Amino acid sequence: MSDCVFCRIVQKEVPAEVLFENDEVIVILDINPIHYGHALVIPKKHCRDFLELPPCSYQAILEAARVVCQALVRGLGLEGYNLFSNNGRSAGQSVFHFHLHVTPRYPNDDIRFVLELKKYSDGQLKHYAELIKKQFDSI
Amino acid sequence: MSDCVFCRIVQKEVPAEVLFENDEVIVILDINPIHYGHALVIPKKHCRDFLELPPCSYQAILEAARVVCQALVRGLGLEGYNLFSNNGRSAGQSVFHFHLHVTPRYPNDDIRFVLELKKYSDGQLKHYAELIKKQFDSI
Repeated sequence: MSDCVFCRIVQKEVPAEVLFENDEVIVILDINPIHYGHALVIPKKHCRDFLELPPCSYQAILEAARVVCQALVRGLGLEGYNLFSNNGRSAGQSVFHFHLHVTPRYPNDDIRFVLELKKYSDGQLKHYAELIKKQFDSI
Repeated sequence: MSDCVFCRIVQKEVPAEVLFENDEVIVILDINPIHYGHALVIPKKHCRDFLELPPCSYQAILEAARVVCQALVRGLGLEGYNLFSNNGRSAGQSVFHFHLHVTPRYPNDDIRFVLELKKYSDGQLKHYAELIKKQFDSI
């Protein structure tokens, strides 16, 4: 038996409120939602994070996100929603099976990112761009 | 001339540090980054938000995100990264041309979401699931 809770949900060994399901993807309600209706789009095949997600799954993931997102917008009368995926412990990932959050948002709902935006000094923007772009050859 | 800053970047009317570009997508460095290397994946064709993004763009968006994400992980030695998209003013969207953020994260970088997670009371989980699922017929 898998020790991954999302694999166990896919296998129906752990209960979940399933919104949508096809051969590749399952969408469930997060039981600790940011707002009611907060959904998780999960590929059925286990992969740890976005970089492990096979590119052949991309279309299915975003198509499932679109259907659920549209249903949330209509069903809850939303004006806003976030899509996000945390990858790695330092980024807030807690279940190490890739998932995409789809969260309702409301005006003045007092949810915010706490952070200090940085500035690039002269030359630093180009320095970072070169550092990143020189990796492309080996990808 | 468009009044959309991302359309103007695509048209090369406004300068930007371009990391990657193909027929469908441009990836640039955010000039006010959460961390240095914070990138934006932008479809070249204007659309306001995720629900306006044509499904035929999904693959190109996530493939560009993968390349840049992999380059960030290797170039900056990352253990973590977030992908996110804010849609609608109440969700923090400030440029109304769809974009996907790819942000480096570091252990103890003191970036966090401020929010209070909700709980579903008995029956409420199923109530929300039904509310959402009954929209699917018209999508």
